[in-house]
Amino acid sequence: MRKLLIEELGRKSIEQYASSEKLPLTVVLDNVRSIYNVGSVFRTADALLIEKVVLCGITACPPSDEIHKTALGAELSVPWIYEEDTLEAVNRLKEEGYKVLAAEQVEGSIALQNYSYVGGKIAIVFGHEVKGVRQDVVDICHGAIEIPQFGTKHSLNVSVSAGIVMWEVVKQMMFK
Amino acid sequence: MRKLLIEELGRKSIEQYASSEKLPLTVVLDNVRSIYNVGSVFRTADALLIEKVVLCGITACPPSDEIHKTALGAELSVPWIYEEDTLEAVNRLKEEGYKVLAAEQVEGSIALQNYSYVGGKIAIVFGHEVKGVRQDVVDICHGAIEIPQFGTKHSLNVSVSAGIVMWEVVKQMMFK
Repeated sequence: MRKLLIEELGRKSIEQYASSEKLPLTVVLDNVRSIYNVGSVFRTADALLIEKVVLCGITACPPSDEIHKTALGAELSVPWIYEEDTLEAVNRLKEEGYKVLAAEQVEGSIALQNYSYVGGKIAIVFGHEVKGVRQDVVDICHGAIEIPQFGTKHSLNVSVSAGIVMWEVVKQMMFK
Repeated sequence: MRKLLIEELGRKSIEQYASSEKLPLTVVLDNVRSIYNVGSVFRTADALLIEKVVLCGITACPPSDEIHKTALGAELSVPWIYEEDTLEAVNRLKEEGYKVLAAEQVEGSIALQNYSYVGGKIAIVFGHEVKGVRQDVVDICHGAIEIPQFGTKHSLNVSVSAGIVMWEVVKQMMFK
């Protein structure tokens, strides 16, 4: 099987991307510490054509040389906004009609393999590398999604978690 | 929804992990440059209870302080081996009865949303951050899986790609 050349991948220009219809999925980063993780989330968000990223609290924002390096420039295509307070960001999304879900290990969460997209606008909140999504933020979400984990560690890398959850939701939005 | 305490997560000890039945999924890293990515793959491999990671070429191996830091110690639970030559690693897996798939953008790849696990042992090869899986390695794989991408960039971060593909395969192995 021949590997495809870059020009055969059919990727969009920044202008084509800007005018493309996005999927009704917003990702909220609640105090993500590592610029590397922020850049990686932008890269996944670009690939999966989600509508925006909301950067909250201490989460680094573009323009940043380090985000640019790890996002490979995807922070230039994916729409993003900054909200200092994650609670305000979530409340605003709820007012705008989003179903807001925390990606977190909580009582009563939906295991990702059981998640079923039933339409509408979705926002998913990913949290700090060590502390996760803040309890007061979880408290105002409509629900929680949890990636089942069977090993010795407590959690996944946040950019990997975001990739897995975004993939599962996008797949259902696009192909179900 | 109350966030779960660490002791409520039901994670395994290293000993419990060692004696647990693993999923018949092996991940091969073909010349992955970044120790950060290697550590992150170990962390996902631990969470998803896959049977081993094969580290090839320039891919860093434990023991390594930096792998330990990014894997949070998951390199101590997940079985791994080192093979200098990725071609030999793939040929050995084929001899051992694995269906070997490259995670790569190639002619005739299976889009991940169309992938269907039908039993048996699977090995998936992930490649170098810039060059991807080597063409000569792709050539001897049984097939290729491709994560569909709709944005401006050519690829995802390799630890994110590995997380997404591992999730999709593990989900089908465990829950289908």
